[in-house]
Amino acid sequence: MKAVVYRSARHLEVQRRAPEPPGPGQLRIAVAYTGICGTDLHVYHGDMDARVGPPAVIGHEMSGRVAEVGAGVTGYAVGQPVTVMPTRFCGRCAACRRGDAHVCHAMDFLGVDSPGAMQSSWTVPADLVVPLPDDLPLDRAALVEPVAVAVHDVRRGRVTDADQVVVVGGGPVGVLVATVARHRGARVLLVEPDPFRRSVAAGVGIDAVDPAGTDVVALVDGRTDGAGADVAFEVSGSAAGVGTAVDVLTTRGRLVMVAIHPQPRPVNLHRIFWRELELLGARLYQREDMVEAVRLVASGVVPAGQLISRVVPVEAAASAFTALEEGGGVLKVLLDWQEADR
Amino acid sequence: MKAVVYRSARHLEVQRRAPEPPGPGQLRIAVAYTGICGTDLHVYHGDMDARVGPPAVIGHEMSGRVAEVGAGVTGYAVGQPVTVMPTRFCGRCAACRRGDAHVCHAMDFLGVDSPGAMQSSWTVPADLVVPLPDDLPLDRAALVEPVAVAVHDVRRGRVTDADQVVVVGGGPVGVLVATVARHRGARVLLVEPDPFRRSVAAGVGIDAVDPAGTDVVALVDGRTDGAGADVAFEVSGSAAGVGTAVDVLTTRGRLVMVAIHPQPRPVNLHRIFWRELELLGARLYQREDMVEAVRLVASGVVPAGQLISRVVPVEAAASAFTALEEGGGVLKVLLDWQEADR
Ligand SMILES: [Zn+2]
Ligand SMILES: [Zn+2]
Ligand SMILES: [Zn+2]
Ligand SMILES: [Zn+2]
Repeated sequence: MKAVVYRSARHLEVQRRAPEPPGPGQLRIAVAYTGICGTDLHVYHGDMDARVGPPAVIGHEMSGRVAEVGAGVTGYAVGQPVTVMPTRFCGRCAACRRGDAHVCHAMDFLGVDSPGAMQSSWTVPADLVVPLPDDLPLDRAALVEPVAVAVHDVRRGRVTDADQVVVVGGGPVGVLVATVARHRGARVLLVEPDPFRRSVAAGVGIDAVDPAGTDVVALVDGRTDGAGADVAFEVSGSAAGVGTAVDVLTTRGRLVMVAIHPQPRPVNLHRIFWRELELLGARLYQREDMVEAVRLVASGVVPAGQLISRVVPVEAAASAFTALEEGGGVLKVLLDWQEADR
Repeated sequence: MKAVVYRSARHLEVQRRAPEPPGPGQLRIAVAYTGICGTDLHVYHGDMDARVGPPAVIGHEMSGRVAEVGAGVTGYAVGQPVTVMPTRFCGRCAACRRGDAHVCHAMDFLGVDSPGAMQSSWTVPADLVVPLPDDLPLDRAALVEPVAVAVHDVRRGRVTDADQVVVVGGGPVGVLVATVARHRGARVLLVEPDPFRRSVAAGVGIDAVDPAGTDVVALVDGRTDGAGADVAFEVSGSAAGVGTAVDVLTTRGRLVMVAIHPQPRPVNLHRIFWRELELLGARLYQREDMVEAVRLVASGVVPAGQLISRVVPVEAAASAFTALEEGGGVLKVLLDWQEADR
């Protein structure tokens, strides 16, 4: 088997290794595709070395087929298509005790805290495995995990078919949030400065505007009889994005904080007070979100095929990371593991 | 009759005027007591001249008795004790159309946008009047309006008897929020640097600590088996207060933004994301909050008498504002209007 190993900042290595046989309660998966996401880029930049503990196999967005079934595991057969929910909770911390295990304080996030999906043979606990329909192409299925993020975010924002939604930031998660919110019946506006990302969004039927050339607040006011947006999603990670998301909301509007903001950001707390806004943190997903994400990808509600910019062989992993880092002209990039062991 | 008239920054004048007879649908009230609150101080400092349009009669916390009943008003008799809900909504704006009239975009806040309560004879629309029980002393009844703020804030925070609550800021509203939250069954910790305010809080049985000498986060963690607080109320208006309120919360905890922050504040959005916190703006109150506030003051749940630091005659209004401005040794100050017209 092969694995993409993160060694140190900007240093990936493709290694040949022996597959790990599944222990009791485990499944070994022949990985088909892995997606590269923002978290993987953070790891690649060296920002998460304390958690990752290099050298380490990274990656957490994937699809594959069951290759070997460990003792005591029922309900899975060799060859069955699956994906993995890459989050293991401790069951003991304050979050777990409150029933919020998906934000467990001692979370083991596979691909960060323990070995990840970027290997042709991945051995994982069977209770993290999520079955896929037989007729779902495995390249599209590699998007299930980020779609689950979007499903969770939209649920957190309590989006309904009466809502005007504004999504600030048109990377993969932003486009997926917009897609899921539209599927809930909301009117959706995406705000994204990058023309390539706007063109991808437009290609899947999402109304996308450039904040540089548009008074977003005035535009939304015009579309809502002066009221403002019911729900905003901050997916840009920028200070300007936070400002737009706060300013665009109507009275008692909801702002869902999806992006990671490493530094504290200035926030207009007076507007939050004055309009009785809600700011809601949204992180990861629960199993029901993964299951819903499988449905949305399989049914074509999420046009996964159109969001995949490039599929590259494992040997090109390092250059794929570089391309994503530069940002222009790529949305989602997949590594193809199917030929890796030949 | 007499009135306290705000003329310009730090310039109040007691004027003699003719009482305004009630028109159809109005009541004329013989004012007994008016409270001085933070909003009145903002007006006094000249910060709200654009809304106030001096010269103007200010004030909105009051108690009194019906003195004259306008045409078409039923259910009120001369001599009946009453208070006033000082908020008039437009019924037409986006907030009103959504059913959020209490944060109407075109709100007429009596005592700011139109003539207020600091006059011995106040004529108001009858539908803003709230009846008081006969046996409730009128000095305590002057606290009903700020208690309604606290009732609304606690309701917005969804406080239950299972919750650990932290109130950051021990002015009148902070102490009232703590009192109402405790009445809901929550364990409450108040954080306040001023020793006088802490002593008032302690006098009504509220556990109050000095943030300068205490690691508030560690203290709350210790009291919650490491979990953190379920609900925090930011009532201090300070940047440090915002930080404490965010840091003290458990996973999925609620932060209710009660204070006015004129400038944007740096907020740890990463923690809001990571712990899936909720930040909820809370402003003013609805009629049900006023009615509940009357109950809480009348029943003694809110120890209104102990929160009143001083009752002064109308002629001492200017010096009362100065004392509040200096801040030391006073919590709630009332003006007594009962002898004003003698
Ligand atoms: Zn990811
Ligand atoms: Zn846990
Ligand atoms: Zn007030
Ligand atoms: Zn209105």
